[in-house]
Amino acid sequence: MKKTDTATCQRLTLRQTARFLKKHDNYIILTHASPDGDTLGSAYALYYALNEIGKAAEVICPEIIPQKYDYFARKTDYVSRDNATIVAVDVADSNLLGALKDEFADKVELCIDHHISNTQYAKNLYLDSDAAAAAECIYDLIAYMRVNINDITAKAIYTALATDTGCFKYSNVTEKTHRIAASLYEFNIDASEINRLMFDTKSKKLLELEKMVLEAAEFHFDDKCFLLTVTAQMQEKTGCSGTELEGIAVISRSLEGVKAGVTVKQTDDNEFKVSLRTYPPLDASAICKKLGGGGHKAAAGASVKGSLDEVKAKVLEAVKEALEESYAGTSSAE
Amino acid sequence: MKKTDTATCQRLTLRQTARFLKKHDNYIILTHASPDGDTLGSAYALYYALNEIGKAAEVICPEIIPQKYDYFARKTDYVSRDNATIVAVDVADSNLLGALKDEFADKVELCIDHHISNTQYAKNLYLDSDAAAAAECIYDLIAYMRVNINDITAKAIYTALATDTGCFKYSNVTEKTHRIAASLYEFNIDASEINRLMFDTKSKKLLELEKMVLEAAEFHFDDKCFLLTVTAQMQEKTGCSGTELEGIAVISRSLEGVKAGVTVKQTDDNEFKVSLRTYPPLDASAICKKLGGGGHKAAAGASVKGSLDEVKAKVLEAVKEALEESYAGTSSAE
Repeated sequence: MKKTDTATCQRLTLRQTARFLKKHDNYIILTHASPDGDTLGSAYALYYALNEIGKAAEVICPEIIPQKYDYFARKTDYVSRDNATIVAVDVADSNLLGALKDEFADKVELCIDHHISNTQYAKNLYLDSDAAAAAECIYDLIAYMRVNINDITAKAIYTALATDTGCFKYSNVTEKTHRIAASLYEFNIDASEINRLMFDTKSKKLLELEKMVLEAAEFHFDDKCFLLTVTAQMQEKTGCSGTELEGIAVISRSLEGVKAGVTVKQTDDNEFKVSLRTYPPLDASAICKKLGGGGHKAAAGASVKGSLDEVKAKVLEAVKEALEESYAGTSSAE
Repeated sequence: MKKTDTATCQRLTLRQTARFLKKHDNYIILTHASPDGDTLGSAYALYYALNEIGKAAEVICPEIIPQKYDYFARKTDYVSRDNATIVAVDVADSNLLGALKDEFADKVELCIDHHISNTQYAKNLYLDSDAAAAAECIYDLIAYMRVNINDITAKAIYTALATDTGCFKYSNVTEKTHRIAASLYEFNIDASEINRLMFDTKSKKLLELEKMVLEAAEFHFDDKCFLLTVTAQMQEKTGCSGTELEGIAVISRSLEGVKAGVTVKQTDDNEFKVSLRTYPPLDASAICKKLGGGGHKAAAGASVKGSLDEVKAKVLEAVKEALEESYAGTSSAE
């Protein structure tokens, strides 16, 4: 396996990326940790497309892929690590490779991404920061290479688009996102069933956890900030954890007048995952950067160490600063 | 004003409907009671389009239009009742005209609708039951007549599409729905702000009510039915009522394995509004028909008289029958 020089990252055009994909024969496609619909949908769509043109490819996810993605996340080829070309999709930072970081972080030859915050850790980077989902890049590549799309590829791409946009709800959606979605309806994707699986399959235990979370919810800064907490105790009591908690952050952005929806999830004794959802003029990515994380303008995250009270204080301080900068002269402090 | 013979309803083609709209000069456009994004968005889009081609038009809603629609629901022309041509949009049944029924029910000269259950009460009917929203019909008419769309018309149509599809989530969405949405992004619609207003502006008091509703939630029939109750007491205690309660029905369809999500809202001492959300093979429209209501396959409603217990029993019986028909041979009864 070739060692990549992380100091020099080559930005590729769509044409160059297509040429790169046609040139090699054996691919390992990496997703990010805490896999979501976009990283998985993009990885599998790329896998199916590469298969279509006779390439071998293996999708490797740092964690067990949640069952709900089974309708497109099937068993892929096995590709020997010795002569594989490593591609990462939707992975903005090599740290997000999680358990795969040690083995692959410095060997990624191509990264296909849509995060403006991409740290350019890969040897080659195809980045379209206007894309609502990394899967838009994959769709463009497939179209450019004139590779056949089949039903399962269409399902993977649709899933990625829907999950990264709150089902076409958020500010990252463009005319192009809808045009791609429209074209996927030509295939047998059963979009409403995909959306049911992605958005409307709350388990009874998650319902119990949500009730606890809502009971403990806090408003701050003239109700401009809504803060939800998911403690380890709540997770133990209800048996809800990991990717099952994905939907909680969505609740945090749904309150009237709220500019910053914060979810603080306990991941370890002294560690919390902070998820931030913002509305303009707030920039979630900028706020999370202060906490050592990153992401998009309207949705970002960070992992923060400390006690619950310490982490909450840190996050609220960062949100307060952003509110004060954005609403200078108006009363935004508590 | 001409009297319409309700016994004969003429089905019009798109071309005939466009010709009808070009022929007259003064329109009154009616929406249904409990106005939603589709009836309002369709009515206002039609109003703006008619204005564009030099016609006078007045939008009349049987109830006060909720403030959240202010961004497109502006003051319209005043049109004298004496020489007006009456058009109803998204109104499947003249009973749905509510307070306007007595004055207008037998005078509707054109109904533009997408409900398969349309009762053909109007003299002329343009019905596209494949349309996800009545606004798709309006969009087609505007395109056919080659009338200019401007930003506010685009906002009205986008609102209608988004609200009638759960933001492009449900089974009524087609390739065409996404193609129309894409074309509306060419205008200055700020779709994410519209979606925030429509879906993510839960008030603090609604949050309180939701907590109560979730506490009282019931599962029935092997968890295939999830039932939410909104009593008059809950509404009084939280100060939440009317169209503020719209979002509750959405919760009822979000639980894993649930085929029928039922919301029973108290509207009077001895009367309840039942909202039903179903997944295949259940047909919400068929179930609600048994309760004296109607609607679409995946979303329907009915107004049912009786005590809370009586109404719940009636609804559960109807759901049970449907489940037994659909899952004959399997154990679906409680």
